[in-house]
Amino acid sequence: MKLVIIGGVAGGATAAARARRLDEKAQIVIFERGEYVSFANCGLPYYVGQVIKERAELLVSTPETFKGKYNIDVRVQTDVLAIDRQAKRVRVRDLQTGQSFDEPYDKLILSPGAEPLRPPLPGVDLPGVFSLRSIPDSDRIKAVVDAGQAKTAVVIGGGFIGLEMADNLVERGLKVTLVEALDQLMPPLDREMAALAHQNARAKGVDLRLSTKITGFAQAQGGGLTVDTEGGGQITCDMAILSVGVRPENALAKAAGLELGPRGHILVNNALQTNDPDIYAVGDAVQIWDYVTGLPVAIALAGPANRQGRIAADNAMGRLSVYRGSLGTAVVKLFGQTIASTGPSQKFLAQNNVAHLVSYSHSANHATYYPGAETMLVKLIFAPSSGRVLGGQIVGGEGVDKRIDVLATAIRAGMSVFDLEELDLAYAPPFGSARDPINVAGMVAANIMRGDVKAVLPPAVAAMDPERDVLIDLRFKEELDEAATIPGSLHIPLPMLRAALPGLDKSKRYILYCAIGLRGYLGYRIMSQSGFEAVNLGGGYGLYTPWMS
Amino acid sequence: MKLVIIGGVAGGATAAARARRLDEKAQIVIFERGEYVSFANCGLPYYVGQVIKERAELLVSTPETFKGKYNIDVRVQTDVLAIDRQAKRVRVRDLQTGQSFDEPYDKLILSPGAEPLRPPLPGVDLPGVFSLRSIPDSDRIKAVVDAGQAKTAVVIGGGFIGLEMADNLVERGLKVTLVEALDQLMPPLDREMAALAHQNARAKGVDLRLSTKITGFAQAQGGGLTVDTEGGGQITCDMAILSVGVRPENALAKAAGLELGPRGHILVNNALQTNDPDIYAVGDAVQIWDYVTGLPVAIALAGPANRQGRIAADNAMGRLSVYRGSLGTAVVKLFGQTIASTGPSQKFLAQNNVAHLVSYSHSANHATYYPGAETMLVKLIFAPSSGRVLGGQIVGGEGVDKRIDVLATAIRAGMSVFDLEELDLAYAPPFGSARDPINVAGMVAANIMRGDVKAVLPPAVAAMDPERDVLIDLRFKEELDEAATIPGSLHIPLPMLRAALPGLDKSKRYILYCAIGLRGYLGYRIMSQSGFEAVNLGGGYGLYTPWMS
Ligand SMILES: Cc1cc2nc3c(=O)[nH]c(=O)nc-3n(C[C@H](O)[C@H](O)[C@H](O)COP(=O)(O)OP(=O)(O)OC[C@H]3O[C@@H](n4cnc5c(N)ncnc54)[C@H](O)[C@@H]3O)c2cc1C
Ligand SMILES: Cc1cc2nc3c(=O)[nH]c(=O)nc-3n(C[C@H](O)[C@H](O)[C@H](O)COP(=O)(O)OP(=O)(O)OC[C@H]3O[C@@H](n4cnc5c(N)ncnc54)[C@H](O)[C@@H]3O)c2cc1C
Ligand SMILES: CC(C)(COP(=O)(O)OP(=O)(O)OC[C@H]1O[C@@H](n2cnc3c(N)ncnc32)[C@H](O)[C@@H]1OP(=O)(O)O)[C@@H](O)C(=O)NCCC(=O)NCCS
Ligand SMILES: CC(C)(COP(=O)(O)OP(=O)(O)OC[C@H]1O[C@@H](n2cnc3c(N)ncnc32)[C@H](O)[C@@H]1OP(=O)(O)O)[C@@H](O)C(=O)NCCC(=O)NCCS
Repeated sequence: MKLVIIGGVAGGATAAARARRLDEKAQIVIFERGEYVSFANCGLPYYVGQVIKERAELLVSTPETFKGKYNIDVRVQTDVLAIDRQAKRVRVRDLQTGQSFDEPYDKLILSPGAEPLRPPLPGVDLPGVFSLRSIPDSDRIKAVVDAGQAKTAVVIGGGFIGLEMADNLVERGLKVTLVEALDQLMPPLDREMAALAHQNARAKGVDLRLSTKITGFAQAQGGGLTVDTEGGGQITCDMAILSVGVRPENALAKAAGLELGPRGHILVNNALQTNDPDIYAVGDAVQIWDYVTGLPVAIALAGPANRQGRIAADNAMGRLSVYRGSLGTAVVKLFGQTIASTGPSQKFLAQNNVAHLVSYSHSANHATYYPGAETMLVKLIFAPSSGRVLGGQIVGGEGVDKRIDVLATAIRAGMSVFDLEELDLAYAPPFGSARDPINVAGMVAANIMRGDVKAVLPPAVAAMDPERDVLIDLRFKEELDEAATIPGSLHIPLPMLRAALPGLDKSKRYILYCAIGLRGYLGYRIMSQSGFEAVNLGGGYGLYTPWMS
Repeated sequence: MKLVIIGGVAGGATAAARARRLDEKAQIVIFERGEYVSFANCGLPYYVGQVIKERAELLVSTPETFKGKYNIDVRVQTDVLAIDRQAKRVRVRDLQTGQSFDEPYDKLILSPGAEPLRPPLPGVDLPGVFSLRSIPDSDRIKAVVDAGQAKTAVVIGGGFIGLEMADNLVERGLKVTLVEALDQLMPPLDREMAALAHQNARAKGVDLRLSTKITGFAQAQGGGLTVDTEGGGQITCDMAILSVGVRPENALAKAAGLELGPRGHILVNNALQTNDPDIYAVGDAVQIWDYVTGLPVAIALAGPANRQGRIAADNAMGRLSVYRGSLGTAVVKLFGQTIASTGPSQKFLAQNNVAHLVSYSHSANHATYYPGAETMLVKLIFAPSSGRVLGGQIVGGEGVDKRIDVLATAIRAGMSVFDLEELDLAYAPPFGSARDPINVAGMVAANIMRGDVKAVLPPAVAAMDPERDVLIDLRFKEELDEAATIPGSLHIPLPMLRAALPGLDKSKRYILYCAIGLRGYLGYRIMSQSGFEAVNLGGGYGLYTPWMS
């Protein structure tokens, strides 16, 4: 048995190691075009940011450790040029010697990854315009920053790599402009959730330009670059980081006639097998499917690449193993915030006509009487029929990563919002609350499901019928001294509401709101049981502001 | 409809608030014997520790806020003396006026909590011997510490309240002796897991006395106390905290003829209804059942009390709502460590003859190349038939609380160790790894289930057959310079193992070990496929040392 693997990082190295454990006698070869195998791509932004101090930390394994631990033949700086499916061999070039040769295989696993998109814009190849995928890429960027040559940077693209670069460049003292063509950062999230990150980025001094397209780059007068934007704008800077997404590395697969998806990803079945039964493919290069809806997606993340590598190795070595799809669970640290999502977004479900409901809840990460509590906003997306959780998004500070993992587990298990209400999560004051944010999110969603509250969202305020709708702000006077209110609201602090009812008009519809949606719900319960038509503004003023921004 | 609630803290206050939301018109009365309702019991140790600076922070609500928000009549300092089930009324005494009166009810919810055990030992009522349940209790302890009168303390009892007190007293600069009658701290965990906490406590300068029974207290010569221990030992100290467990507050229930369990807890059905259909009971006072096994348990934790309060209110107000049992998920911060568990322990399962397997894995809480990674040890307990996860225990630093919550969710969902392997958890370097500790725990357990590894545990080393068994230490030489090895081991670093095989004896059984169990597994794969009998020492030397301690 001879297993050949193309690509020696997240998916490829994992598949190779697993294959060896399954078969001590197999011959296993990894071809890796770059200088390094098994390195920490995900650490690169933090290496530039000097959070990771030693370059050597990025090297998870080397060809030598692979040989020693796994008896695997790793050939770095070796490019695979073609796959001959008939003859079951690959054509390979040693980039150091320039020599080419053929290497036969019984089974082949492709984990060639993806390459950063470089749109064909004027000036895109100027020095000073960088992409980030490999260690040498990070060396180049870091050298410029280390030399103190850059005081300002433009980061183009608000996906997680762009955001991590922006974060780390700010840490290094650069003034950063962040440019994104869409109207939001972090595309896996819905816009109103990303809006919390927009507010924070701006508060931290980042020049954030949403809905802004780049049209080209030029050398600036007296050094540096100018970045041109659609509509004639120009941003000058000392360096630009281009992180506008990735393209699957599909050249080999395409040339070999393997089936590709509409966006060029290699197609695989649930054994991660291509249309050639002897060839498997994993990682950033493949199209897989969303765990919840079964719809095709491509997810360029290390966790899925890792799991896929292990499963593909199982199948290649003759042990049946099934990949069940991905939730695309992701998290990013950005200017002190944590931004996370799991499962399909609301916009993805809407585009695909999948029925869904949403709920929002703000919660503290731990008991508020214990110092240092930070607020997070939790969005749940769930099925209107069963309450099954479809997706979740959380923006906040500490503890966001915990809650997104609980949601990812719950979604994977097919749990409903009713299950979330009852989850038995660990509580001590430094870690949580007797009602964890996930319990609360479940309760808020379950109350919608059970019809115990009628919730509206911020657009309902803009769409108000002035004849019929009346806003009531239920916050305390002291809170309004510090925060704005929605113009035209009556102000009745919740504890006064019962006494105020006789003065209210039963022919009106009252839109109740407070800071986060809790007192709005309490007000709803009072009014709806007292003969009034009322609705609660879900997420309260704390969602209204970013939503409207 | 008139609802009367006895006890106004975790369970009672929650039930009252929920009942109001369900019925705006009901009459709702809370009787609370103490001075405060709705206070943060869980914050008390941190108030003593001055982590929580303001006493007012402990008061989550007051009778006034309850009136305003919920229109609920809260009567503090009002003791319920008796329940007259026939007449459906309670006999009540106002502790301020000394007057007694009757209060009728339609439905009654009991949430009287539990009281700290005070064993009838000589000197137990001496000044300087404290218990901790209420705000006044914490005032008394804090006053002594604030006055600088105490330099040394003995904490008696290694449950979570004792541990939190020990932690906070150490923070306040006291020298602490921690005495526990059992051979371990944190009884919900199994001993080998608690042993990690023992090591840490000792390293942090705590005088830890396990398997030590207290026999009495006496006034010491020249002030302070002496604490007598079985066998004649004496510990002198300035103050003692008695936290040897709680007893359900069952006097009212018992006198009213409500059914009690063997340890005096109030018995309830899954609607949290007692044997009197108009009386519900929740919280520390009730016996419920373990979610996994269905076996009876009593769990004195705020999360369950809270959820039970909400469910009892539903039922009392005529809305069917089912309690499904508890996992007893718990977490505690202790001398910089985090100690957590969910679901039944191995010893509980063993006592009850429930078949189970266990696995251990050490993992870093986030990418090791990102600074500040801390190691945690994860124990999984799972069903031998299906691999269903039954329980989990984790000891480590940051991120332990996250993983225990993921496990609690998985257990609740009935997931198996195979599901854990594939969980799609969020990964970015500050938060996790491409393989999260929970994925790794799942893989290690699943490998046992699939027969891909034969694992033994530390007792197998003591039980070795010297004729047949040979230990191999697979660590590198440099590692052994810093750590001890098991006497009598061959030393073959993993990368040399393949080359060393010809010199090994196929009639022996090789017990392989490394630091954490990973290379032991790799070694097992190599040897078992090369015609040798081998086993892996699960958890490696990192489990062996605490286990043997
Ligand atoms: C800067 C950065 C930060 C990231 N941060 C995170 C994060 O925080 N969390 C997360 O989950 N994911 C993160 N990722 C994504 C993650 O690294 C990828 O999803 C993962 O590495 C994909 O694995 P893969 O095996 O498909 O591709 P890769 O790991 O990229 O490996 C593919 C390898 O194949 C080689 N190759 C391609 N074609 C050939 C050929 N013809 N011959 C020989 N070799 C070839 C390439 O040189 C490459 O080294 C990050 C990525 C980057 C670039
Ligand atoms: C110091 C400490 C720290 C803790 N830390 C944690 C933690 O970190 N995490 C966690 O999950 N749990 C923790 N707990 C446990 C948690 O507080 C309890 O499980 C929870 O409060 C139980 O709720 P309950 O309603 O059953 O009882 P309680 O909250 O104790 O309320 C019962 C109330 O009923 C009143 N009462 C009793 N009998 C009568 C009567 N006859 N008439 C009138 N009133 C009566 C009592 O005065 C008492 O106030 C801690 C507890 C303590 C004491
Ligand atoms: C490191 C790498 C080579 C994977 O190697 P690997 O040997 O499969 O991974 P591990 O060492 O974690 O696991 C080895 C085995 O030990 C077991 N194991 C893992 N951690 C363990 C632990 N803490 N205790 C006991 N056993 C453990 C696993 O079950 C696994 O065996 P299995 O797959 O047969 O079940 C590969 O993931 C890699 O190159 N990573 C770096 C690149 C990358 O991932 N980049 C993107 C993220 S920055
Ligand atoms: C605070 C206390 C009175 C409970 O009151 P409560 O009104 O039930 O609790 P909350 O304010 O959290 O929730 C009120 C309602 O708002 C909803 N809600 C909670 N948080 C929300 C949020 N962030 N956004 C929107 N709605 C929210 C809930 O769904 C709940 O309604 P429901 O039960 O009808 O579904 C009670 O738990 C208590 O006394 N706690 C202190 C004592 C204690 O717990 N001690 C032990 C731990 S230290």
